[in-house]
Amino acid sequence: MVKTSVQHSSNPPYCYPIAIDTLCVRLKIKRNTCTLVLVHYQNLYDHTSYLKTSEMKLILSDDLFDLYETTITMKSRHFKYYFDITCKNIIYHYTSDGFITEPEPSNYFYYSSINKDEIKTLPKNCEGEIIYQILVDRFFDGNPLNNPKNTKNKSELPDRNTYYGGDFEGIVQKLDYLDAYGVKIIYLSPVFDSPTYHKYDINDYYHIEDIYGGKEGLTTLVKKAHEKNMLIVLDTVFNHASSNHPFFQDILLNQEKSKYLDYFEIESFPVSVEKGNYNNFANLVPSMPKWNTVNPKVQNYLIDSSIYWMKKCHIDGFRLDVADEVSHAFWKNFYLRIKQQNKDAIIIGEIWNQAQNWVNTNEIDTVTDYKFRQFLLDFSGFKKSSTHFFQKLNHHKMLYLTPTFNYLVHLVGSHDTIRLINYLQKPKFHFLTLSTMLLFDGIPLIYYGDEIALPGEVDPDNRRAMIWDRPITSEEEAFKKLCKFRSQSEVLKKGTLETISSTSRVLKFIRSYQNHKILVVINFSGRPTLVVSHDYIHLLGEVLQKNGGFIVYPYSYALFRI
Amino acid sequence: MVKTSVQHSSNPPYCYPIAIDTLCVRLKIKRNTCTLVLVHYQNLYDHTSYLKTSEMKLILSDDLFDLYETTITMKSRHFKYYFDITCKNIIYHYTSDGFITEPEPSNYFYYSSINKDEIKTLPKNCEGEIIYQILVDRFFDGNPLNNPKNTKNKSELPDRNTYYGGDFEGIVQKLDYLDAYGVKIIYLSPVFDSPTYHKYDINDYYHIEDIYGGKEGLTTLVKKAHEKNMLIVLDTVFNHASSNHPFFQDILLNQEKSKYLDYFEIESFPVSVEKGNYNNFANLVPSMPKWNTVNPKVQNYLIDSSIYWMKKCHIDGFRLDVADEVSHAFWKNFYLRIKQQNKDAIIIGEIWNQAQNWVNTNEIDTVTDYKFRQFLLDFSGFKKSSTHFFQKLNHHKMLYLTPTFNYLVHLVGSHDTIRLINYLQKPKFHFLTLSTMLLFDGIPLIYYGDEIALPGEVDPDNRRAMIWDRPITSEEEAFKKLCKFRSQSEVLKKGTLETISSTSRVLKFIRSYQNHKILVVINFSGRPTLVVSHDYIHLLGEVLQKNGGFIVYPYSYALFRI
Repeated sequence: MVKTSVQHSSNPPYCYPIAIDTLCVRLKIKRNTCTLVLVHYQNLYDHTSYLKTSEMKLILSDDLFDLYETTITMKSRHFKYYFDITCKNIIYHYTSDGFITEPEPSNYFYYSSINKDEIKTLPKNCEGEIIYQILVDRFFDGNPLNNPKNTKNKSELPDRNTYYGGDFEGIVQKLDYLDAYGVKIIYLSPVFDSPTYHKYDINDYYHIEDIYGGKEGLTTLVKKAHEKNMLIVLDTVFNHASSNHPFFQDILLNQEKSKYLDYFEIESFPVSVEKGNYNNFANLVPSMPKWNTVNPKVQNYLIDSSIYWMKKCHIDGFRLDVADEVSHAFWKNFYLRIKQQNKDAIIIGEIWNQAQNWVNTNEIDTVTDYKFRQFLLDFSGFKKSSTHFFQKLNHHKMLYLTPTFNYLVHLVGSHDTIRLINYLQKPKFHFLTLSTMLLFDGIPLIYYGDEIALPGEVDPDNRRAMIWDRPITSEEEAFKKLCKFRSQSEVLKKGTLETISSTSRVLKFIRSYQNHKILVVINFSGRPTLVVSHDYIHLLGEVLQKNGGFIVYPYSYALFRI
Repeated sequence: MVKTSVQHSSNPPYCYPIAIDTLCVRLKIKRNTCTLVLVHYQNLYDHTSYLKTSEMKLILSDDLFDLYETTITMKSRHFKYYFDITCKNIIYHYTSDGFITEPEPSNYFYYSSINKDEIKTLPKNCEGEIIYQILVDRFFDGNPLNNPKNTKNKSELPDRNTYYGGDFEGIVQKLDYLDAYGVKIIYLSPVFDSPTYHKYDINDYYHIEDIYGGKEGLTTLVKKAHEKNMLIVLDTVFNHASSNHPFFQDILLNQEKSKYLDYFEIESFPVSVEKGNYNNFANLVPSMPKWNTVNPKVQNYLIDSSIYWMKKCHIDGFRLDVADEVSHAFWKNFYLRIKQQNKDAIIIGEIWNQAQNWVNTNEIDTVTDYKFRQFLLDFSGFKKSSTHFFQKLNHHKMLYLTPTFNYLVHLVGSHDTIRLINYLQKPKFHFLTLSTMLLFDGIPLIYYGDEIALPGEVDPDNRRAMIWDRPITSEEEAFKKLCKFRSQSEVLKKGTLETISSTSRVLKFIRSYQNHKILVVINFSGRPTLVVSHDYIHLLGEVLQKNGGFIVYPYSYALFRI
């Protein structure tokens, strides 16, 4: 055994409580090197030699490692433990002091006590549900009376100053449309008073844009959505404000004497937008001064606004813009306050890369998992094989806690990326990729228009007006059916995912929940692929039934109950 | 290269800010496998192909791994990076997605933004200073008038109900004694109102024991200590209270109607001490109900008491009893409030095992590092070699941030362990072991009496009355001299520690600070050991100067300026 190829530490994602008396314990070890991994454990205050034992189960593999996992329970909530790893019939004792011939308690790993706030809790109505992302201005104009003067014709392409007139009333009118796709969570682009069309620079966190329909419009939207059992998630922008925000304006006016100096990070005086001598978004955009999110006064001011909208309009959750640049202290405070208001409110951080530092504790519930997009597009764009896709995805999943696997927000496009159809070019690949996302674990996020292959290059072209009143294609129809199917399938929403090896252009995996299993076969190759079986029941996707099995057509997928 | 033998993630201790624009970046790799490790880095928002590069330096090795480290600076505070590892003339690119042939930004590691509360700050007056731990009752009786009635004769051994009459006035009278040992920090056992002699079960966090001299006595002690530039650290017990505490008594009286129900973790009704049907210390001691430290009301109540004593008596810091069983939320709150009151107050957690989950962020400053004791006693007790000692110690140090190396509280005994002299039996080994601790990095903690080899088996025998008015031995005199030397040596207090390979019973290392270097040679063998040098200057310890070097006697140590 390669002793340097074993990883464990007594903190997430290797050791974390999943109940007040239960730890999930994981160990990572070089792939295919061991035949058995046991964890021996005991109450920290038990000084006898009696140890309980649990066998660990292989749950994920990437190109280099196997990840083993088990749960251990101790009513006292106090744990000490070590591992026995069997490789080629030799047993190795792995402890906090490394490999030890005869482990003693001084060598064990310790999880001294479970406190209940360390148990990762997740919003119970959101597991595996479909999110639909809407740029309010671009979706549907339900009330032309509230349009700004310079509203553009929807047939024209957008620039960085375009208004199309979309509003809350437009979304209300399209709730049935979204319902047909099984959408559970509608996530709206920022709706607060702001000098720009995108509204990622906010002037007033307590004022809803009149051009969208104001507070009344939002209240009605939430009410109508709730009637259909849908949730409304707002985009909060707490990393930075607009330089027009009154607190920042106060600094520009009163300089050293402003009472808001410690609300931002001022570098020198006199402060001016021209000089940009203060911390600002990306250190590149002086019109967006960065909030000093370490300051409790800033935390309270901004978080109060979220609580206000939860109380006023019954908002169900928040998407956090640039979540990984705001202080952890801010989010921990935010989390406590939001969950106190509604323990099932959902908190989604915008994080593009590895997000374990935010999502593995009770700081944010989940993240926009752009890494999923990266790996899936590498595969569906013909750059990488299915093996590579699963290995990279599993390498990534190993960073996160098992209970979050069906909460990671998977997406293949957003207002910040090129449109999927433009990246993949062919509708066939577009819909197969989108469908793949719907068949995986996690929370799939559909960026408005992707369900009809709305085109667009990068910003601002990826934010075109939604197209309505057009005939629906068979590919779109099939995708809609899949979405609805998923929304009604506990297996797809809450099931585990076990990969099955296949050829380089075929994804094959089993989703399992309780006693139910669905085999998913996604054929990204130009050749038909055969599924051998006498007793599988075909559930979805076009197949050719043969004696002894099914043929999944090129560039298509199929689901089977097994 | 063994690709599974590389470890890095973008969080502590592998990646952490040490200044508002600077990250410390580390990479762990199988020992002796690579010749060069580079980190390439860039502003997260820089989309050019231009990368800066820093060469990583080997800072620690254990039996299996080398730990490489460097710092990288980016004025923008936004980082992305990856590593180039050279092994046998082949360069491997190591990224967040593992080993990649041609890394792109989507593969890089990210530290998106440094927020200033993520920079580990440490109390500036405490680096490497000597702590002296006092059990107040057992140290010196300065005022017999405040003694409890049942005070025991100091020549008798203690049981679990012994009072010897020690008090604050006694400590005041012995400040010169402590000063002669270069003691900077005096850490007192609990001083609050409590039904037991040890006072780890507190009735009233706002009342100082009268038998110790009450609030006035403590105030005087702090004042006198400050005059000598010494600090006073109190022992806080926030994991549990005494069952006599009025809040818990209120529960016993009012049961379901008590307003303090959520201050503890009640399991069923009726609550009674006999049944112990509530969470309590170790789940074994119903007379010590465990505080519900997740509850902000409990946090405020208890932390307010610490702030009160900082304000009233100018207390300089706290030792946190059972720190690893109190919630992280509690300590994060505690940390913020204490540092707001005095940014250089020192916060020391009682943690016996790996403490990276508490000490690597701004939650507690440092810990009682019992792992150091474990490894040192294995060596000085003739169970393990010097190589084993250094390897285990370095394995352990790799868990922590480099700036904390001279803050980890090293100890070889406390009120919770057998006395050092009883463990090692011979005064020669006792003083050599104690001296070793004083020559290492970290904050050395002397448990009262260890400086005169006060004997004692485990609790209660390890808490005997201090012995005064006796002739001092030459070994004690030499130890006192070493303590004073350390207290005046920036190199020993603030220097790095670089091990030098030697024979199995000899510890050899270099302490370096700025341009000053001290070679330390500690000879735990029965044979003299030779230090070859023409220009070293002998600083401390008995040696025999020879032409071309020095001989360090058996069971002794020596320091040289090099």
